[in-house]
Amino acid sequence: MPELRKDPVIGRWVIIATERGKRSTDFHCTEPEITVNSGHCPFCGGNEAKTPHEILCLREPGTAPDSPGWWVRTIPNKFPALMIEGDLDRQGEGIYDRMNGVGAHEVIIETPEHHKNLADLEPHHIEKVLYCYRERMIDLRKDPRFKFILVFRNHRSSAGASLDHPHSQLIATPIVPKRVKEELRGALNYYNFKERCVLCDIVHQELRDKERIVVENGHFLTFTPYASRFPYEICIIPKRHKACYEAITNDEMGALAQIVKSSLVRLKKLLNDPPYNYIIHTTPFSLPKDLRDYHWHIEIIPRITYVAGFEWGTGFYINSVIPEEAARDLREIEV
Amino acid sequence: MPELRKDPVIGRWVIIATERGKRSTDFHCTEPEITVNSGHCPFCGGNEAKTPHEILCLREPGTAPDSPGWWVRTIPNKFPALMIEGDLDRQGEGIYDRMNGVGAHEVIIETPEHHKNLADLEPHHIEKVLYCYRERMIDLRKDPRFKFILVFRNHRSSAGASLDHPHSQLIATPIVPKRVKEELRGALNYYNFKERCVLCDIVHQELRDKERIVVENGHFLTFTPYASRFPYEICIIPKRHKACYEAITNDEMGALAQIVKSSLVRLKKLLNDPPYNYIIHTTPFSLPKDLRDYHWHIEIIPRITYVAGFEWGTGFYINSVIPEEAARDLREIEV
Repeated sequence: MPELRKDPVIGRWVIIATERGKRSTDFHCTEPEITVNSGHCPFCGGNEAKTPHEILCLREPGTAPDSPGWWVRTIPNKFPALMIEGDLDRQGEGIYDRMNGVGAHEVIIETPEHHKNLADLEPHHIEKVLYCYRERMIDLRKDPRFKFILVFRNHRSSAGASLDHPHSQLIATPIVPKRVKEELRGALNYYNFKERCVLCDIVHQELRDKERIVVENGHFLTFTPYASRFPYEICIIPKRHKACYEAITNDEMGALAQIVKSSLVRLKKLLNDPPYNYIIHTTPFSLPKDLRDYHWHIEIIPRITYVAGFEWGTGFYINSVIPEEAARDLREIEV
Repeated sequence: MPELRKDPVIGRWVIIATERGKRSTDFHCTEPEITVNSGHCPFCGGNEAKTPHEILCLREPGTAPDSPGWWVRTIPNKFPALMIEGDLDRQGEGIYDRMNGVGAHEVIIETPEHHKNLADLEPHHIEKVLYCYRERMIDLRKDPRFKFILVFRNHRSSAGASLDHPHSQLIATPIVPKRVKEELRGALNYYNFKERCVLCDIVHQELRDKERIVVENGHFLTFTPYASRFPYEICIIPKRHKACYEAITNDEMGALAQIVKSSLVRLKKLLNDPPYNYIIHTTPFSLPKDLRDYHWHIEIIPRITYVAGFEWGTGFYINSVIPEEAARDLREIEV
């Protein structure tokens, strides 16, 4: 069972993944491994038997579960960071605090094709991926042990991907993570002061200023944040207030698929298929779905610079590309 | 002039380094550059004319400034993240906040020899480096524009080093960074509850539990933190309460040099000279030097794993090495 341990100074929880226990020689400095499709990729179409049983799958009518014929397939992670069984069993160890690593860890395989990436898929296919995110959130919300779900995507090994077959991941956590609490607290402070959602205010200012806009459609806006930490960092946000991703309508999902595609293609073309992380920021389960002070969004961080001692020590970042110039470069890409 | 911009949700400041402006093609995915000593390294002995004038230098008696004959040499960073001249000039831009990027950015060149790393230097030489940290902090504290100093070290390019000649850096910031505030707030909360310094309590528990100790001497302790975020992360801490690094005595500096050497040699031998960041955590200038609720320490993070979407989205970390096993591995290395 993995263990959650809390840093006694800063209050940050860490997952000690005892089951995946590694040895010091596993970390000897070598080049990052490039995984290639050797025909044995467990996420490829035809290899369904190599994975745990599917939880949610969009597949051609008449095809059987765990067999070919699918478009998007959600499965439990075979090497989960958190385990689905058991109770938290919170305990002290002297001044320290721990609990069991209970949670859900699932993989959304985005296509049976190994070499098609999310940026290469058609919007109607991306829509199926976005649909799986929503349906799994709605389902996992029913488990009272879970407080929050993070949907994320690591593209390429230097962004943390261990398999190069296109996939997203979802982790349901038994506590609201530190980063999420900070964001909610910041948004609430703003709301208390202004009586407006800070992210709605950002949308309005970006639409007015225009210089940080990358692309937009009827429902969504992609822009480079004013205080971007990383070169070419982007944010995709609904234009109208909506607190949680789960409340997305089918109509909006079509528009989101379109802008995700356009945004990823721009990053891919401009930066030569960079490693990136994408993260859906949404509300914890304990908050009302129509919360007025928070607004869900997707953050995409190209991983093309190194995080160094200054960033670790201060939480500040040094960004060598002006966000307005990053937006212009991305806007000018032909899609 | 670099610009500081504030994220309106989370309150994090970002340095937009406009002077170092990069273009998208600078980030095309390629292997990290390995810098080698081609005889042109500006930090090497003999090349003193290639750097800005030295600020503080420990050198052989009778040798002239900016000439050979030195052991440790502190200079202004030629490409500073923050600029020493000017005022903050805080302003709003609609809902956003900005100020000028004012601060100090210095480089402590640890040796004139290109291929000697900190782990290879003798303790009496490391002591000179530690001495420069202290003296620069004492001096920069006099500038009322500065609120905090971070001393850090990036080892190898994948930890963010842009030159491989051994050096530390120091950045004086015009505001107390987010990460520092969080740590101080956590320590204060603990003090308000327990009437004891949380870091003193950690020292006591580590000395009693023993299983996370890597090495110790009369003044200092190196241990793997209970909630380590990264495999083989270590912390070097004074055994007796002391809030700020500047208050270190000459006696303690000798003991610190010895334990820094021993700790770095262990990491180097066990993990095959891994990239790492080291960071001195100390108090901001506004707090009394004898603050009771905080305790300075050095954090050393080997950069042997990737930070991925889950970590960015939650602030949680997944560590695949149990801290007690990491301590045992490091303890068993012969130094």
